[in-house]
Amino acid sequence: MKKKYQELKNRLAEISHINSAIALLTWDQSTYMPPKAGLARGKQLANLTKIAHEKSTDAELGKLLDELQTYSDSLDYDSDEASLIRVTRRNYEHAVKVPVPLMAEQSNHSTITFEMWKEAHEKNDFSLVQPYLEKTLDISRRIANCFPNYDHIADPLISFMDYGLKATEIKKLFATLREELVPLVESITAQPETDDSCLRQFFHGDKQLMFSRHVSKRYGYDLERGRQDLAPHPFVIKVAANDVRLTSRFKERYLAENVLSTMHETGHALYEFGINPDYEGTPLNTGASVAVHESQSRLWENIVGRSKEFWEHFYPQLQAIFPEQLESVPLDTFYRALNKVRRSYNRVEADEVTYNLHVMIRFDFELDLLEGKLAVKDLPKAWQERYESDLGVTPPSDADGVLQDIHWFAGMVGGYFQGYTLGNILSGQFYKVALKTHPEITDEIGAGQFTTLHSWLKENIYRHGQKYTTNELIKRVTGDDSIMVEPERKSLLFHVKASFDAHVK
Amino acid sequence: MKKKYQELKNRLAEISHINSAIALLTWDQSTYMPPKAGLARGKQLANLTKIAHEKSTDAELGKLLDELQTYSDSLDYDSDEASLIRVTRRNYEHAVKVPVPLMAEQSNHSTITFEMWKEAHEKNDFSLVQPYLEKTLDISRRIANCFPNYDHIADPLISFMDYGLKATEIKKLFATLREELVPLVESITAQPETDDSCLRQFFHGDKQLMFSRHVSKRYGYDLERGRQDLAPHPFVIKVAANDVRLTSRFKERYLAENVLSTMHETGHALYEFGINPDYEGTPLNTGASVAVHESQSRLWENIVGRSKEFWEHFYPQLQAIFPEQLESVPLDTFYRALNKVRRSYNRVEADEVTYNLHVMIRFDFELDLLEGKLAVKDLPKAWQERYESDLGVTPPSDADGVLQDIHWFAGMVGGYFQGYTLGNILSGQFYKVALKTHPEITDEIGAGQFTTLHSWLKENIYRHGQKYTTNELIKRVTGDDSIMVEPERKSLLFHVKASFDAHVK
Repeated sequence: MKKKYQELKNRLAEISHINSAIALLTWDQSTYMPPKAGLARGKQLANLTKIAHEKSTDAELGKLLDELQTYSDSLDYDSDEASLIRVTRRNYEHAVKVPVPLMAEQSNHSTITFEMWKEAHEKNDFSLVQPYLEKTLDISRRIANCFPNYDHIADPLISFMDYGLKATEIKKLFATLREELVPLVESITAQPETDDSCLRQFFHGDKQLMFSRHVSKRYGYDLERGRQDLAPHPFVIKVAANDVRLTSRFKERYLAENVLSTMHETGHALYEFGINPDYEGTPLNTGASVAVHESQSRLWENIVGRSKEFWEHFYPQLQAIFPEQLESVPLDTFYRALNKVRRSYNRVEADEVTYNLHVMIRFDFELDLLEGKLAVKDLPKAWQERYESDLGVTPPSDADGVLQDIHWFAGMVGGYFQGYTLGNILSGQFYKVALKTHPEITDEIGAGQFTTLHSWLKENIYRHGQKYTTNELIKRVTGDDSIMVEPERKSLLFHVKASFDAHVK
Repeated sequence: MKKKYQELKNRLAEISHINSAIALLTWDQSTYMPPKAGLARGKQLANLTKIAHEKSTDAELGKLLDELQTYSDSLDYDSDEASLIRVTRRNYEHAVKVPVPLMAEQSNHSTITFEMWKEAHEKNDFSLVQPYLEKTLDISRRIANCFPNYDHIADPLISFMDYGLKATEIKKLFATLREELVPLVESITAQPETDDSCLRQFFHGDKQLMFSRHVSKRYGYDLERGRQDLAPHPFVIKVAANDVRLTSRFKERYLAENVLSTMHETGHALYEFGINPDYEGTPLNTGASVAVHESQSRLWENIVGRSKEFWEHFYPQLQAIFPEQLESVPLDTFYRALNKVRRSYNRVEADEVTYNLHVMIRFDFELDLLEGKLAVKDLPKAWQERYESDLGVTPPSDADGVLQDIHWFAGMVGGYFQGYTLGNILSGQFYKVALKTHPEITDEIGAGQFTTLHSWLKENIYRHGQKYTTNELIKRVTGDDSIMVEPERKSLLFHVKASFDAHVK
């Protein structure tokens, strides 16, 4: 069996090397690729993805997994061997269940739809993309139906990103959160508008990068095992365990953009850096799910990076870099500006309190569309109405409304949006336990020290990689049975605590 | 047949996409890869190379080529279709003839030998690496013997780099060249030593790069289809037809390094840029051979870039960038310094006149070793003696002698070195025809214009990619039957003309 197990690892290593190449090609595409190389890059990526998929669905791999099942059953559930076999089997079954022609149809349709969406967005004309979105919805349903034993048709789609989480549970969770969130937003926005003009002066890009790199390094980002570059959209990409690259961007007229997005991406990177190095070359060498990954980016961005303690330490340093702009701005003014809450119609630009309302709107629509309760043609009107009722704003156009996000026009309807808000909630749920175990964390943040928090996260979450599902990990870390919004509000909205403090208190 | 031909192209495109990924992984390894990512990168490269090799030697590909042979025979030899089938078949036969276990043995042995060479080089101890080099020689012979119908045992090894060229012809050619070269070196070095101190002042790296990028662009390097980065060793790497990347380095205390190496690499890049874009994704999408490739780097570096005409135009610009260092240095002094000839024991640092003598020494030893005339254990002594007789210098140690180059310790004995000097000769042979057709080229260079020369090279050499062998290309371009050192010295040492002018005239 040792030999079979080694054969499994060899096959998985080969797939992981192809995925490394895909990761580097993707990173390069957003950073250093020459302008005219795009067309060829698309073909290279499509081709390597095809090869990786062929190797991931190879019948020989399935046979090997069958042969290893008894061995796996004889081992401790938590052992690396059993976990590797378990997770590989889960991925394999996921991959083989969607027939190749359907995958190809989805891939081709996505490419066309994406192009149509660009035109529709530019021309503010939903009708251009409506028939394509209808077909995307149809394809999404057919993909879901490749996994017939679901409770809700969205469940298989959600499981691609957040394995084990169910639509109805998420719906209930979101309802609880909304109950708290809507009055919170109301009470905040009833206050006089926060003045954030201190963030909207001119801040030289190089100096912004100098500061955010300093913070990122203090968080624990290791430049021997990664690098930081500029890109149009901030992201983290993992080429290998010792090659986790971060990108960021800056706006010279808005200071918050660079520092917050760098903290966010650093959170993702710390997670990947912290995975047990023995898992290199296997499917265990990644985060548990989109939701857990997002909990880490949100934790380092919002819970740590927007906190008063953090800025008590770092604000004097920032003032020293930008004396002209910030010398006369008190810490409290800066802190409130960084946590400003405002109703808007744009998800990406939303603050961290209203953000979740944007996500819930999209999640609900996904379920309605998949269930057949809502027709694609009625989506623009429903969008307008829902924004008015939930956020009290009216998007000025479809381009600023239903067409603002690319997700539905670049793949599937369903499975994408829940992770953002689940991550927000989870970040609070995890952080509460960390604080309970190590109450000194708050003081350490105030001293610019993050080792205790970082070590706790590594020990309890990061090192496991994809060994455990989201719910298994929550149970291990918190003792809770699943993602929870707690009634006493202690961790309920931990991620918006800073905003809450800044505005309401 | 059209369908079969399309199937061939699809298979080749798939291989070319994997090679694109290999190229990017390699480029990144020398430019932006994080320090600790090296081990994983080695595995990624080995794995993708294995996949590319499997696909290049797939029996289905061989069958397809057999089926297409009659079709190919019915077509014009010069047609793209016939050429693609012909070149693919040649590569295929080359690839399948070396058994996989022998390839693996060579690859593993190379890795170990390379590590041993590093130690031997550091400790100046040839005996450490001697048994490994003996095995390398044995492996090289066994690889050569996979192609049994050779005239000389080095021929199959040479054909990996310079298909169609034969050891005995090259030997004869080199002998002719040496006859001219040795007295030339003597007459030059009999003159008082040239003062090149003007190049050895402090020159700020950023300004050097500014100038060399300007020259590179004027030569025709297209930054929309490529990019220029710093790397420890200058190279050009082609990711795709529209993605040809150049790297360079600089020495702040030696001005010639950056500008000459950038011209050299630009020559390689212009060749790759100039290939017919229809050849993308096929084996035709690369240069004809190492020798022809080297002829282009040498042409743009030495014939154009070391010429008096070139500097008549560009020297005032260089002076404007470095007024403090160069304002009081006359053009002639600068020009002589740039073309300084000196006897030395180091190939890489050699000037362009003595350079060929270094290459010939290595080439002769390769033949002697392969023929069994020289034993590995006698190599250090032979090396010393030959340097004394040919170059009049004694290497102070084996580290500075027989151990100075990595080539024999990183792959095979044989096949590597001839290309450097063949390229030098060819650059003169090609340039002579260009000048005969367009005598205005010299004046244009003097005006900083390169369009006529570049267009001629593109039309006559670059666009064909790998369609023709080296000799076929020489015949088409020059009418000559092969690489020639011409008796009347007109093109004989065209590449050293500048040195010759600067010193002897």
